[in-house]
Amino acid sequence: MPKISLKGQNMPESPIRKLVPYAEEAKKRGISVFHLNIGQPDIKTPQIALDAVKNNNLEVLAYARSEGSETYREKLTDYYKKKNIDVTANDIIVTTGGSEALLFTLGSITDFGDEIIIPEPFYANYNGFSTANGIKVVPIVSSIDDDFSLPEIEEFEKLITPKTKAILICNPGNPTGYLYSKEEIEKLKSLVIKHDIFLIADEVYREFIYDGIQHHSVMSEGGLDQNAIMIDSVSKRYSMCGARIGCIVSRNKDLIKTTLKYAQARLSSPTYALIASEAALDTPQSYFDDVIVEYLDRRNILISELNKIPHLKVSKPKGAFYCIAELPVKDADDFAQWMLESFNDKNETIMVAPASGFYSTKGSGKNQIRIAYVLNKESLIRAVELLKLALEQYKN
Amino acid sequence: MPKISLKGQNMPESPIRKLVPYAEEAKKRGISVFHLNIGQPDIKTPQIALDAVKNNNLEVLAYARSEGSETYREKLTDYYKKKNIDVTANDIIVTTGGSEALLFTLGSITDFGDEIIIPEPFYANYNGFSTANGIKVVPIVSSIDDDFSLPEIEEFEKLITPKTKAILICNPGNPTGYLYSKEEIEKLKSLVIKHDIFLIADEVYREFIYDGIQHHSVMSEGGLDQNAIMIDSVSKRYSMCGARIGCIVSRNKDLIKTTLKYAQARLSSPTYALIASEAALDTPQSYFDDVIVEYLDRRNILISELNKIPHLKVSKPKGAFYCIAELPVKDADDFAQWMLESFNDKNETIMVAPASGFYSTKGSGKNQIRIAYVLNKESLIRAVELLKLALEQYKN
Repeated sequence: MPKISLKGQNMPESPIRKLVPYAEEAKKRGISVFHLNIGQPDIKTPQIALDAVKNNNLEVLAYARSEGSETYREKLTDYYKKKNIDVTANDIIVTTGGSEALLFTLGSITDFGDEIIIPEPFYANYNGFSTANGIKVVPIVSSIDDDFSLPEIEEFEKLITPKTKAILICNPGNPTGYLYSKEEIEKLKSLVIKHDIFLIADEVYREFIYDGIQHHSVMSEGGLDQNAIMIDSVSKRYSMCGARIGCIVSRNKDLIKTTLKYAQARLSSPTYALIASEAALDTPQSYFDDVIVEYLDRRNILISELNKIPHLKVSKPKGAFYCIAELPVKDADDFAQWMLESFNDKNETIMVAPASGFYSTKGSGKNQIRIAYVLNKESLIRAVELLKLALEQYKN
Repeated sequence: MPKISLKGQNMPESPIRKLVPYAEEAKKRGISVFHLNIGQPDIKTPQIALDAVKNNNLEVLAYARSEGSETYREKLTDYYKKKNIDVTANDIIVTTGGSEALLFTLGSITDFGDEIIIPEPFYANYNGFSTANGIKVVPIVSSIDDDFSLPEIEEFEKLITPKTKAILICNPGNPTGYLYSKEEIEKLKSLVIKHDIFLIADEVYREFIYDGIQHHSVMSEGGLDQNAIMIDSVSKRYSMCGARIGCIVSRNKDLIKTTLKYAQARLSSPTYALIASEAALDTPQSYFDDVIVEYLDRRNILISELNKIPHLKVSKPKGAFYCIAELPVKDADDFAQWMLESFNDKNETIMVAPASGFYSTKGSGKNQIRIAYVLNKESLIRAVELLKLALEQYKN
């Protein structure tokens, strides 16, 4: 029998999805499950985007241009200008989701055995994209006690080797909700220029910033033209996770030229989703204003409710719609599974993402979970109540 | 300035697209260009698939299941049963196009430096997917004089090393149009079982078979359960190239389990396209009957017109909608570019794909082109006339 490769064996299982069978079993037993485990918002997609697809008059669902149409990329530059990101259509390669943007980027700047440094905890699928590219993630620990702010730049420097090709950040962060300050971006800038490596910033949660703070993109930072690569996506911005449209943005011409070769090999991004994404750029500001108010409320309620649970520690997110909570348990993987298998209150339970999958240092984050506040306030309050009850029962 | 990786540098440019700028220039000069260079059919997408998307009532464009929904995969098994392919929904992983199906498959069965054997000429993007996975394509030459039938099995065997993980065929073939017989599949079967390697068959052109011959899938061949992997796609079947929905089909459980990890890392295939693809499975047989009649007519006209050109050799395709033609020129790359840059007749010219990009043996196929018969009969007749005129002028 022919064998699976080492790489295939090493591909990580999704920590977000590995509990799915237990949730399905719970549902079969008549238990309602509150899903705080994935970043699938319940927010409605802008009507303008949905209508564009419903009103399309295609007779042949043909390939789109590999790099995305000129008109879509031009319109994207207008959107970016409003975000203080001044780029041209030629600095953009449209991709099939932010996932593909990262895959193509890593494929363009790394060779087998190379390394990228990522502050942990980090978006779990960075592990998968790295494994798929045959490269190694070198984690640098950030702490819940500092709300997961940027680790000391000297700690980064200690990890840089000739194999280090990039530092990858997620800003604001999934799963931490941390928003890097201009000063933190500037420190990273000095470092990547000094060592002649890339700075990749996954900025897909750009729109979700709270407390009046300003997002500072790596693309807005002067002097980084050759080093900065921005990863973007329509998934969260317009609550269009199922579109699968993202992009790579960089002023480094070689990078764009190389990622275009990857884009051409897979021919095209999905045409319907491109129609929706282009139309979504005309979403009125009021849509975002409403969404931010909603998420801000959710965050405030979630954090204040979580803080009522004894011996629970939670970081306060400044952006995105996740937070990491440290629980008074030894093994959050076991606890999360137990909540689905053996716990319910009035036939209700919750599903969370154990945080261990967001760390690549073995044994880290074992007592942490990621909570996505993608449900309405009422559900969030009940979900935290269930968490509290579950913790009480689990201990006994 | 940080550098592009060796892998990034080695990613091949698409041979199908590298002439695009010359075609665009020609159009700016007022020249009409007949596109015989890409496999983008002009055939209408089934109305039932287009309507399903137009009539959708989604309010949130959410992620789909990473492996594709249960209902879609179940319905796919009904389609396959009609094609004499008996599989279950669990043998299927839905992917974002046949491209991703191949990427995930190669990622699951190969490690850095491994090899796969492919009869050449082959679909050019196999090179890109192999480079992206850090593996080497080992070509085995098939000949226009045999209509590109399977090379002697002994020739395959000579190329097998401990690094060989699979043989990859495209059946019926792009760019050759060749359809492998049951006997040829059986020869490959003995070989892959003997050497304990995979047999990957890209069968995306299954519907396009002429002359009453029967397509024989690797999935219909007994005794290949652990070795056979089928790559499929809706792109050509329903003229939905822009959907970007494909799948991996295999009875090898480890392979399915591993490709699922890749699928989970990128979260989801595009949701709108899944709606279209599921609906497309109800396309009436009359649609295919009409399409086959149309392609058969086109093939017959194209081949008979081409055969009128002196010193031109052409293989007769039994399937798909491509053929390879050998021209009385030394350098078909140069000739194809010249047709766009310096030739026209009544302000018309044609664009073809130089075949060199479909070979990985250096210097092979230099005097060959691939012609896609994706235009109506009238256009095809005129296109071949233009080719004839161009050849006459180019020689002088």
